[in-house]
Amino acid sequence: MAKYVIGLDFGTKSGRALLADAKTGGIISLAVKDYDHGVMDTVLPDGTTRLGVDWALQHPQDYIDVLEYTIPSVLRESGLAGSDIIGLSIDFTACTILPVDASGTPLCFREQFIHRPHAYVKLWKHHAAESQARRIDEVFREKKILDIPRYGGKVSSELMLPKVLQLLEEDPEIYEAADQILEAADWLTQLMTGKKRRSGSTAAYKAMWDEGEGYPGADILKALDPRLERYPEEKLSEAICPVGAKIGELNPAWAKRLGLMPGTAVGASIIDAHAGMPGCGITKPGQMMLIIGTSSVQAVLSDHPYSGRGIMGGVKGGIIPGYYALETGLAGVGDNFEWFIDNALGDGYKAKAKEAGMDIHRYLGDLTRDYMPGESGLLALDWWNGNKTPFVDANLSGAILGYTVYTKPEEIYRALIESTGFGARIIMENFEAAGVQVDEIYACGGIAEKDGFLMQIFADISNREIKVSASKQTAALGAAMYASVAAGAARGGYDHITEAASAMSRIKEQTYKPNAAHVEGYDRLYGMFKELYGYFGEKSNIMKQLKEFRTNSR
Amino acid sequence: MAKYVIGLDFGTKSGRALLADAKTGGIISLAVKDYDHGVMDTVLPDGTTRLGVDWALQHPQDYIDVLEYTIPSVLRESGLAGSDIIGLSIDFTACTILPVDASGTPLCFREQFIHRPHAYVKLWKHHAAESQARRIDEVFREKKILDIPRYGGKVSSELMLPKVLQLLEEDPEIYEAADQILEAADWLTQLMTGKKRRSGSTAAYKAMWDEGEGYPGADILKALDPRLERYPEEKLSEAICPVGAKIGELNPAWAKRLGLMPGTAVGASIIDAHAGMPGCGITKPGQMMLIIGTSSVQAVLSDHPYSGRGIMGGVKGGIIPGYYALETGLAGVGDNFEWFIDNALGDGYKAKAKEAGMDIHRYLGDLTRDYMPGESGLLALDWWNGNKTPFVDANLSGAILGYTVYTKPEEIYRALIESTGFGARIIMENFEAAGVQVDEIYACGGIAEKDGFLMQIFADISNREIKVSASKQTAALGAAMYASVAAGAARGGYDHITEAASAMSRIKEQTYKPNAAHVEGYDRLYGMFKELYGYFGEKSNIMKQLKEFRTNSR
Repeated sequence: MAKYVIGLDFGTKSGRALLADAKTGGIISLAVKDYDHGVMDTVLPDGTTRLGVDWALQHPQDYIDVLEYTIPSVLRESGLAGSDIIGLSIDFTACTILPVDASGTPLCFREQFIHRPHAYVKLWKHHAAESQARRIDEVFREKKILDIPRYGGKVSSELMLPKVLQLLEEDPEIYEAADQILEAADWLTQLMTGKKRRSGSTAAYKAMWDEGEGYPGADILKALDPRLERYPEEKLSEAICPVGAKIGELNPAWAKRLGLMPGTAVGASIIDAHAGMPGCGITKPGQMMLIIGTSSVQAVLSDHPYSGRGIMGGVKGGIIPGYYALETGLAGVGDNFEWFIDNALGDGYKAKAKEAGMDIHRYLGDLTRDYMPGESGLLALDWWNGNKTPFVDANLSGAILGYTVYTKPEEIYRALIESTGFGARIIMENFEAAGVQVDEIYACGGIAEKDGFLMQIFADISNREIKVSASKQTAALGAAMYASVAAGAARGGYDHITEAASAMSRIKEQTYKPNAAHVEGYDRLYGMFKELYGYFGEKSNIMKQLKEFRTNSR
Repeated sequence: MAKYVIGLDFGTKSGRALLADAKTGGIISLAVKDYDHGVMDTVLPDGTTRLGVDWALQHPQDYIDVLEYTIPSVLRESGLAGSDIIGLSIDFTACTILPVDASGTPLCFREQFIHRPHAYVKLWKHHAAESQARRIDEVFREKKILDIPRYGGKVSSELMLPKVLQLLEEDPEIYEAADQILEAADWLTQLMTGKKRRSGSTAAYKAMWDEGEGYPGADILKALDPRLERYPEEKLSEAICPVGAKIGELNPAWAKRLGLMPGTAVGASIIDAHAGMPGCGITKPGQMMLIIGTSSVQAVLSDHPYSGRGIMGGVKGGIIPGYYALETGLAGVGDNFEWFIDNALGDGYKAKAKEAGMDIHRYLGDLTRDYMPGESGLLALDWWNGNKTPFVDANLSGAILGYTVYTKPEEIYRALIESTGFGARIIMENFEAAGVQVDEIYACGGIAEKDGFLMQIFADISNREIKVSASKQTAALGAAMYASVAAGAARGGYDHITEAASAMSRIKEQTYKPNAAHVEGYDRLYGMFKELYGYFGEKSNIMKQLKEFRTNSR
């Protein structure tokens, strides 16, 4: 008799449950729930406590609501019984952390702390710990550890340590009151299993944990702030569970709340983007995952560790046991196009697209579909959201050159798409320069799914075939695979994520093959793109000065 | 009893006559006539003979029509008699040339040549002689004369010699049939007076004529093409008449056609933009004329000759007797803004401006009127039409950097305006580096007239007060001043253009003074602009490669 698993995917705006066949990966049912509080970036739920610039919080109740709504929904829709489900696993945005008390209750649930911003969940894109990140850089540089792979040459304010340091400095009482400060994903698996274990995925990628050396040492932490000296022992769970392992089993109380059986396997959580890797069927080096949505993720497996600025790649087994996974991406992809369409698309285009019954992206793409590389005369730098790798610099900005009085809006749109293709190629070449081959590309995400025009340009620019995941829910499907592995072969799942990924993933029949007539032209344009990239990224200070100017004049 | 003069202004799309008081400059009446054939850039009037890329022709009949319509119109409207008019003078676009036969009849009027493009007027912006211009550069370089002031370091395809060489090479029969190849302005003054004299203004600025040395020598011309060896003697009138002088007197036939008196003084023609200089009241060094329209002209008087790449400044007395006039400008100003509004302004802005009952330029300007320099975070290069000086390169293109997902359309608009302000400042600093002071700015032209937002930004960027001509017809008024001088003081005009300019010009009461709070910020931004300018203009080849790409893929 077939067995089933549930993959839970917690994104930035909503959470979803996907119920799949534990052997074939066939998708049985899906349920989605938006977070009632969404992203809180201006004010707390009290309506009066205002948040600073670059803050981004969430409410932990929203995650509970997702579990209690989506799991019963997918079960009901599938017609299956709770006993048919052998495991569940979570993927989650990261680093997304919250302080909880000894009972596991989030501090923001306590009356005394509801007006305290630091009592809530700091979402991955909470960027208000920038000054802390820069100070950590300095200390790491003094200690001569900044350039070792797990620190990546420059500490992102999205990581756990800057966020915790900000919390400690700005609200020490909350820090004191916290029994643990942990990833929201770990909080959920602890709730459901009662086990104080945390995922090796987030520990390694977001909390600077290393399998051999553990967390950063006491001398380093003390140099940052004396109160942080024993932070790993005091605030973090040190029981680390590798990806693909079982955190524990569903406890009776939560089994009842969710309509599942006590004892159901609960897998160690994984970072949302990483779940897409097995979700796409990637199990070995040479295969790159490319998630294209508002931003992009590019990840590839490697036999050896590597980490450049902005590339996290020092973690063995961080996604697929046995391999190092190198991960980075572009800070803006769909975001850039949406900006263009909302702010810089000439009058009348939207109306014409509507008249033609076409999505505006499709309409614009069709207007330059037959262009040769360079025919627009335009070249853009894709840094509308800054540059993630190799410059790790939110102060870099987008650029377009080649404008003439004959430049058409659809040509600008195409140049913006090309810029993200060139940016993606830079990352591939950085991987390859580190000895990590990129032979095949597996794409997923909203844009990969819908936008054949963009995908063909990406294939032409990268001169590689691009395969597209057949599932629109690649991350949730990946989580379901980890659930299948957490349950194990003996209970109807798999013993290894590579087996699960091979058996449970699908790609679409249609792939994007490079158009030979475009490859050379794009090679030349790419050379020009690299010149701009190096000039504005490193040689010139103009973009940083512009950002400073903009900031200071407001 | 008061006497009057007529200034005739022949622009790119229309011609106009302005009737003014010969002493005070007071404007009595104005008449405008559009050219029936406009600019012919795709096909001849026969409707079948197609023109090549970058061609721009006009029909000489249109100029005759302007004379015959506008002069009787201004007379009629003024209520004056022909005998009240003591002189007329022409300003005209240049280099705008045509081949005529020995009787002065344009070759395109002859049945046998009506299907021959080279028989028509080549308008100033006919750019199809680019390859000829580059060959002339080579010959001039070999002859070691390229860098002497009157050749300006790089020969523009807009000058006379490339245009004539193209005519000779592509249609030698027309070349052979031409008794003269001359500026349209000179053709009109020859028609009206019967005198085969030409204006020293166009001869010097557009035909490489020098007061001491005459036209380029036979050895140089022979090196270009043996058939050109005696071109000045064979095709050009060598009787050169300085600006401010009288070419001759109106002959009886034309006096009758125009309703004026035989014997009315006809001045030597002047280049349209140059007429604006006395038109604004500029009579001495230190005062810069700034004409701002679709493109810009910046001209200043000097005691010594100077000519850099793209700056014509080797001509003594070219505008005001006794001084050298340095002239250059930006290839695109209003053109850039129109492109933006037509192609890159987000949806809905035009509707909102309309709703507010405002011109779109005014509406956009108001949205960032209170911005500090740099507040947009954007920086643009103004090269939508290429760069005229110092790079003399139509293959350079526009650029914008500093884009983020928060960039607003009105901020881009402001950055485009600022880019033209920075471009104008580059020119002023080039003048000053050549020892030619720019103390005051006198502005005129459509944008100077209407756009206080832009004018204030120009004043802030240049850190100089800007005065604006009170007349909307600065060029035609300048032509009227030359008419007054052609007539002379004895007949009720003036003996010198500086007297006429002082007496007949007006500036508006409102001037634009630099805002002290903005000067330092713009100084810093200007430093960044110069870095971009140098990088894309000289160091990097990217823009030229983009242009080549665009051209070759079409």
